[in-house]
Amino acid sequence: MTLTDISVSTRVSDLIARMTLDEKLAQLVGFWVDQGDEVVAPMAGEMASSTAYADATVHGLGQLTRVYGTRPVDPIERAAWLWNEQRRLVRETRLGIPALVHEECLTGLAAWQAATFPTPLAWGAAFDPELVEEMGALIGESMRELGVHQGLAPVLDVIRDPRWGRVDECIAEDPYVVGVIGTAYVRGLQSTGVHATLKHFVGYSGSQAGRNHAPVHAGPREIADVFLPPFEMAVRDGGVRSVMNSYAEIDGVPVAATPAYLTDLLRETWGFDGTVVSDYFSVAFLQTMHAVARDRGEAAQLALEAGIDVELPTGDAYVGPLAERVRAGQVDEALIDRAVRRVLIQKEELGLLDETFEEPPTSIDLDSPAHRAVARRLAEESVVLLTNDGTLPLASPRRVAVIGPNGDSSEALMGCYSFANHVLAHHPGVPMGFEIPTLAASIVDALPDADVTVVRGCEAEGDDRSGFAEAEDAARAADVAIVAVGDRAGLFGRGTVGEGNDADSLELPGVQRELVERLVATGTPVVLVVLSGRPYAIDWALSGEGAVAAALQTFFPGEEGGAAIAAILSGEVSPSGHLPVSLPRSSGSQPYSYLHPILSGPNEITSADSTPALPFGHGLGYTTFERTGLSVTETVSAGDAFTASVRVRNTGERAGTDLVQLYARDVHGSVTRPVAQLLGFARVELDAGAEATVSFDVPTARLAFTGREGVRIIEPGEIELWVGPSCAERETEAATEIVGEVHRVTAPDRRIVEVSIER
Amino acid sequence: MTLTDISVSTRVSDLIARMTLDEKLAQLVGFWVDQGDEVVAPMAGEMASSTAYADATVHGLGQLTRVYGTRPVDPIERAAWLWNEQRRLVRETRLGIPALVHEECLTGLAAWQAATFPTPLAWGAAFDPELVEEMGALIGESMRELGVHQGLAPVLDVIRDPRWGRVDECIAEDPYVVGVIGTAYVRGLQSTGVHATLKHFVGYSGSQAGRNHAPVHAGPREIADVFLPPFEMAVRDGGVRSVMNSYAEIDGVPVAATPAYLTDLLRETWGFDGTVVSDYFSVAFLQTMHAVARDRGEAAQLALEAGIDVELPTGDAYVGPLAERVRAGQVDEALIDRAVRRVLIQKEELGLLDETFEEPPTSIDLDSPAHRAVARRLAEESVVLLTNDGTLPLASPRRVAVIGPNGDSSEALMGCYSFANHVLAHHPGVPMGFEIPTLAASIVDALPDADVTVVRGCEAEGDDRSGFAEAEDAARAADVAIVAVGDRAGLFGRGTVGEGNDADSLELPGVQRELVERLVATGTPVVLVVLSGRPYAIDWALSGEGAVAAALQTFFPGEEGGAAIAAILSGEVSPSGHLPVSLPRSSGSQPYSYLHPILSGPNEITSADSTPALPFGHGLGYTTFERTGLSVTETVSAGDAFTASVRVRNTGERAGTDLVQLYARDVHGSVTRPVAQLLGFARVELDAGAEATVSFDVPTARLAFTGREGVRIIEPGEIELWVGPSCAERETEAATEIVGEVHRVTAPDRRIVEVSIER
Repeated sequence: MTLTDISVSTRVSDLIARMTLDEKLAQLVGFWVDQGDEVVAPMAGEMASSTAYADATVHGLGQLTRVYGTRPVDPIERAAWLWNEQRRLVRETRLGIPALVHEECLTGLAAWQAATFPTPLAWGAAFDPELVEEMGALIGESMRELGVHQGLAPVLDVIRDPRWGRVDECIAEDPYVVGVIGTAYVRGLQSTGVHATLKHFVGYSGSQAGRNHAPVHAGPREIADVFLPPFEMAVRDGGVRSVMNSYAEIDGVPVAATPAYLTDLLRETWGFDGTVVSDYFSVAFLQTMHAVARDRGEAAQLALEAGIDVELPTGDAYVGPLAERVRAGQVDEALIDRAVRRVLIQKEELGLLDETFEEPPTSIDLDSPAHRAVARRLAEESVVLLTNDGTLPLASPRRVAVIGPNGDSSEALMGCYSFANHVLAHHPGVPMGFEIPTLAASIVDALPDADVTVVRGCEAEGDDRSGFAEAEDAARAADVAIVAVGDRAGLFGRGTVGEGNDADSLELPGVQRELVERLVATGTPVVLVVLSGRPYAIDWALSGEGAVAAALQTFFPGEEGGAAIAAILSGEVSPSGHLPVSLPRSSGSQPYSYLHPILSGPNEITSADSTPALPFGHGLGYTTFERTGLSVTETVSAGDAFTASVRVRNTGERAGTDLVQLYARDVHGSVTRPVAQLLGFARVELDAGAEATVSFDVPTARLAFTGREGVRIIEPGEIELWVGPSCAERETEAATEIVGEVHRVTAPDRRIVEVSIER
Repeated sequence: MTLTDISVSTRVSDLIARMTLDEKLAQLVGFWVDQGDEVVAPMAGEMASSTAYADATVHGLGQLTRVYGTRPVDPIERAAWLWNEQRRLVRETRLGIPALVHEECLTGLAAWQAATFPTPLAWGAAFDPELVEEMGALIGESMRELGVHQGLAPVLDVIRDPRWGRVDECIAEDPYVVGVIGTAYVRGLQSTGVHATLKHFVGYSGSQAGRNHAPVHAGPREIADVFLPPFEMAVRDGGVRSVMNSYAEIDGVPVAATPAYLTDLLRETWGFDGTVVSDYFSVAFLQTMHAVARDRGEAAQLALEAGIDVELPTGDAYVGPLAERVRAGQVDEALIDRAVRRVLIQKEELGLLDETFEEPPTSIDLDSPAHRAVARRLAEESVVLLTNDGTLPLASPRRVAVIGPNGDSSEALMGCYSFANHVLAHHPGVPMGFEIPTLAASIVDALPDADVTVVRGCEAEGDDRSGFAEAEDAARAADVAIVAVGDRAGLFGRGTVGEGNDADSLELPGVQRELVERLVATGTPVVLVVLSGRPYAIDWALSGEGAVAAALQTFFPGEEGGAAIAAILSGEVSPSGHLPVSLPRSSGSQPYSYLHPILSGPNEITSADSTPALPFGHGLGYTTFERTGLSVTETVSAGDAFTASVRVRNTGERAGTDLVQLYARDVHGSVTRPVAQLLGFARVELDAGAEATVSFDVPTARLAFTGREGVRIIEPGEIELWVGPSCAERETEAATEIVGEVHRVTAPDRRIVEVSIER
C-alpha cells in the first residue's frame, strides 16, 4: 500500500464512520432524473422509479444517471443545471458529497450536439488500437468538460453469434482483438480523468440463439479462454476503474449474483480495486427475470454479496429493501461498508470530494475539427472491401445512381448507442445537432463531375416493393449504381439491429435482397454498400450469377462515414478495413466462430457446412500485397517469447495499407485447440513497390489456455504459424516448438504481442 | 459382495493371471469382418483396418463387430458361419474364449429380414414405456437366437437442437421421458439375456449448431441436469450392462478422454459395473479429430485411463500402439487388467465362458406376428395429430389422391439405423426381406371403396418441380389429397436426416413445401402427413392462409407405419401420439428447449420470438378430453413425495386415449429454473363420456437440480403444478410447497413418478 492509498483510506474511513445507514445506501445508487417512457434501456418505462428526486437525495446520492443522454438538451444549459445540483448536494446534504455523473459514450458522448464516431464493430474492422485511443481521449475530454465522471463503455463482449442485436456494440469475434482495442479505448478515455466501465462482465454475448438476456450455455473453460481475456487485459493492462455486470446467467447462475466472477476473479485474482456497477435494472432482474430472488431485498442481498457496489440506474433495490434487510440483521452492514468504501474511493480519485462546482462551462465544442478528423480516419480505416471486379475505384462515372434505404440516411451511419438512434429517435423534429452528411450527399461532393440520382427503392424494414421500379429505372439510366442497404439501428423493436433487436434470420432485413437482385439484373454495375450492425448472409451477392461488381461492408461508420465511403468509392482513399467477424452464410449455421477446433469446421462427419461466406480477417484494397518468408525462432521455452518476422511488399500500382495478420495453430493440446488463432496484427502503410519487415515479439502466453486442471497454462508442443490475407489462407508458413515444462500463466506474464516494422 | 461375485472374480482372475499382454489386448477390441467402403459409420471406409482377420484373432478376440448388420446376408447362413467361428475361437485359441457379438438394434435388430420398429422419436411420441419394453424384449429374443450378445441401443441423448441429424435416434427433448422410455427399452432387451448399451455418454446431442461431432458448449450444471439423468436412470433403475462414450468434446475435453464421466461418475457414483465401449473409431478420433493425442498410442492411453474398456469397431489403437506403450512402461498394465476384468466378467455373465457353440439355429422368424403386432401398436400410438378442421377421420371419400415423395415409399417409414436405410441402401436390387407396405398401399387397403390415385409430385430432396402439374391435377380430381412429405433417412450425405445429415434450415427439404402450397391452392382438402426424423418448421401449413385441412406428424413409424397411419386416416384408430419435441418455427431460433428459464422464452427484452409453432406435449385425437380438479398435497418435506390427482373425462363422441401430462414450475430457485417441466405422464384410455382419476405419486427428487455447490438438491419453496394438453396450457392448476431443509439427493432417493388410474 502506498502513502496515497493510506491517505485515501483514512479520509474515506472517517467519512464512513460518520455515515448513517441511509447515507451509506444513498451512495450505492443512481438516480435517473429524466427517466420516463422513452425506451433507452430494457424496460425503462416499466421500471420507472416512483421515488421523487428530492426524496432520493435527502441523504446524498451515489450517481446521477444519464444527465445528458436521456433527452435532447442544450449541453451548456444542462451543465448549468448540473453544476447547480452538485453545489446543492455539496452544500445541503449532511456530508456534502457530490454525485458521480455517468453517461453512455460508446460511439461518442451520448449528448446532443456531440460527435458520433464509428461503432465498435467498425473499430474492430480498422484494427487500429492507437486511433481508438485517440478517439477515447477526445470523448473523455468532452465528458470531463461537461462534468461527467464515468463513461459506460467499452463493450468487451466477444462476438459469438451475429443473431444477437448488440453485435454492433462489440469489437470482434477474437478475444485478443477485443482486448487490445478495448484497452486502447480505456486508456484514451481515462487519460482525461474520466473513468471507463467495462461491460458486460461476463458472458453476455454468448446468449442462447443470440436472444438478448437468454441463458449462456458455456463451460468454465470457454468462459475463461474466450469471454474473460478482454476484461483481464483492460483491468491489468488498462487499469480500468469500473466494471459493469452482464445481465446473463451462465449455466443457471446470473452473473449479477455470482461472487466467483465479480469478487474472486475480478478483485482477488486480477487485483481490480475500482467499483462494480449494475447494468440497468439487473439487480431487480434477479427477482423478476431470473427468479433467483423472492423479492427486491433478496435480489439486493445477492447482488451486494456477489460484489455489485452500485445499483443503476436507480436505487429500487439497494435503498429501501436493502435497508430493511440490514435492519433485520439479514445482511451484514460490513458488506454495505465495503461497497461504500469503493464508491467513496472512486469519488476521491475523481477529485469529487474536494470539488465546489463554482464554474460551469459557458461554451463547448463537442464536435470539434479534432473530433471530426479522428472520426474520419477511423471511418476510412474501417471500410472493408469484400469483392471488386475492378469497378472500384470508380473511374470518373458520368451518371451515378445512389439507391437503397441507407443511401440517403444519416441514421444509417450510426449505431444503436449513438445519441441520435438511442435518444433522438424519440424526439422527431429535433435537429441532429451536428453535421452527418449522408452517403448520397458525400458522393455528390466526392464526384463533382458526375450526375448523381438518389432513389430509395425500399425501406430497411417491411415488404413495400413500390419503389423498386423507380430504382430499376435509375440503375438502368446510370453508369454505375451504388446500392446502400443494411440496418437501421435502434432499441427494443425499433430498428433492425441494436439492443433487443435480435434476428432469427441473417438475410438482409425486409425486401432489400430482392432490391439488390433486381438492380443487378438491370445489367448496370452494382456497387453494394452494406451499412449494418451485424454481418449478414450476403454470399449470393459476392459470387456466382447474382454477384455485384463490388461490395463494401461498413459497420456504422459515424458522422464522417458518408464522406469516408465516398472517398473510397472515388479512389481518394484505398480501403484498408478487414472483417473483425466471419461473414456468415446463414443463421442456421450459428453459432460459429473462426476460433473453432477441427470439429466445428467443415468436415466429413457433418453435412452442415459451417464455412463462412468470407473469413475473419478478409479485406481487399486498391493495391495488392505479398507476404513472404515468415521466419520464426525454432524453439521457445514455455513462458518465454518468440519472434516471428515476415516480409510484406506492396505489389500493386498505388500506395495502400496492409493488415499483416499472424496466425497460429497449436497442433496438439491436452484440450482441443482452435484450427486458427490470430496472434498479432499490424497495419503497414506502403507505397507502390515498397516493402517492409514486420516482426512480432510473441509471448508464449498468447498460446495459453485453460488446461484440464482449470488453470491457464502454456504447454510444450508444435505450433504452426502463418501469415495470410485472412484466417483461412496460409500465404507463408513456419513452425516453432514450445519446449520445457508446462508453464502456469501468472500475473507477471506478458499477454501482449509487440510489433516492430522495419522498412 | 455376494458369493456369485466372488466366484466370477475368481474364475476371471485366474484367467487374467494366465494371459499374455497380447491376449489381454485382444479381449479389449472388436474386429469388423466385413468392414469396407460402405459408409455405415463415420469414416468407416477411411478407417478400414489393414489387419487381416486371421492375424487379429491369433490371441483371441474381444468382440465381433456387426456380424449381421454390415451386409444383407441370410441370417441362418450367417449364424452357421458365426457358430463355426466361435467354435474356432473356443478350440483354437490358447484360452478358448469366444467373442462377444455386438450389433445395432435401435429400431429392431439390424439384420436382413428382421422386423423394423418405429424410430425412437416415435417411441417418445407414444409416451408408452411398457410397450417399448415389450418391443425391447422381442428385439432381444431375435438377437439371442442369432448369437448376438450386446445391442448398441438405446440412444439416451436428450434432444437439444433439431438441426442435428441424429434427432430421429433420440426419444425426446425431456430428460425424464428419455430416461423412463430408455430404461424400459433396456429392461426389455436385457430380459432376454442380451446386454443393452447406453449411448452416447454424454452430451453428444448438444453439439454446436446441431453439427455432428461439433463441440458441446455446456456448463457442468446443464450436463448434470439435462444430459445425465437418462443415463443415471438406465444405470441405477435399469441395470444396464454396457455404456458407449459420446464422440463429443464438452468445453474442450473429449468425453472419450474424460475419467470424470466414464469412471468417477459412472462407476464410483452410480455404481455401474459393466463395460464401457468406444463409439466407433472414437479412440482414434482423439488423435485425428480432437488432436488431444499425438498418435494412436497416446489416444489409446487417454481412452483407457478415462475408462473405455473396449475399442470398437476394431483394435487400431488398443492392440499395437497400446502394447508398445505398455512395453515402454508408459501405461500401467494394471489399467489393461482393469478393462480385461470387466470384459471377462461380462462374458462370464453372458455365459460365454461356458459355451461350446454346437448348435446354430436352423430356422428363425425375425419378423413374427408378435413383432408385427408390437410394431403396429407402437406406430399407431406414435402418430401425432397436429391440426384437424374436421376432415379427419376421412368420411368415406370416393376419390383419394396420395401425393408426395413419402406417399409410396417403404424407406420413408424407417429411421437411419434401420437395416434398410443403414445397410440395404448400399445394395440396390436386394429385396427388403420383410413386409413394409407403403402408406399408399395401406390407404388402398384401409379405404376399399375409394378410388386411390398415387402421384409422387417431387422427390424428398432436390429441386425438380416437373411432377408438380401431375400432382396438382391429381389433387383437383380428388375429394381429399393425402400429402406425405418429410425426410429420407440415411447416413453421411445420403438422405435428408440421420447420422451426419445435419440441417442448416428447418424448412422441409427440397421443394416439398412448394408442392404442399400448390396442392393447398387447388382447393381440395389436403391432409398433410409428415414422415420425418426431426421436427420441421411447418407453421405455414398449420394455420393462416396456407393451412392444410389436417396435419399428422409421424416420426419414422416402421414396418407397420403405413398401416397405422392409414388406420388413423380412416378413423379405425383415434390418434394418441403427442409431440416429444417442440415443433420449431425456424432454424434461426435454435437451439431451443421447452425446458427453459424465463429468459429463453419470448419476452420484451428480445425481438427474436422463440415460441415454437406447436409446443412439447401437443397432440389431438378424434375425441376430446377435459382435465379438471387438480389437487395436491399442500406441503411436502424436501426428500419426500407428494400426490397430485386430476380428473380426466372423455368429452367427445368416441373412445380415445388421453395423455395426462403433469407439469411443474419451481417458482424461485437458487439457480434459474425452467418455466415448465413435465413431472409425470399417463396414457389413459376412456370410452366416450367415461372419466377417471389419475394420481401421480411424485418424489420431490423430480424437482431436484444441481445447486450452486455442484450437488443435486431439493430446495424448499413454492411449486406451481398444472395439467393441460401441452406444456404451454394450464387447464387445471394447483400448488404445493416444499418445506424443511435443503435435501441433498442421494442414491436411495426415488426418481420415478408412480401413476395410478382409478376409474
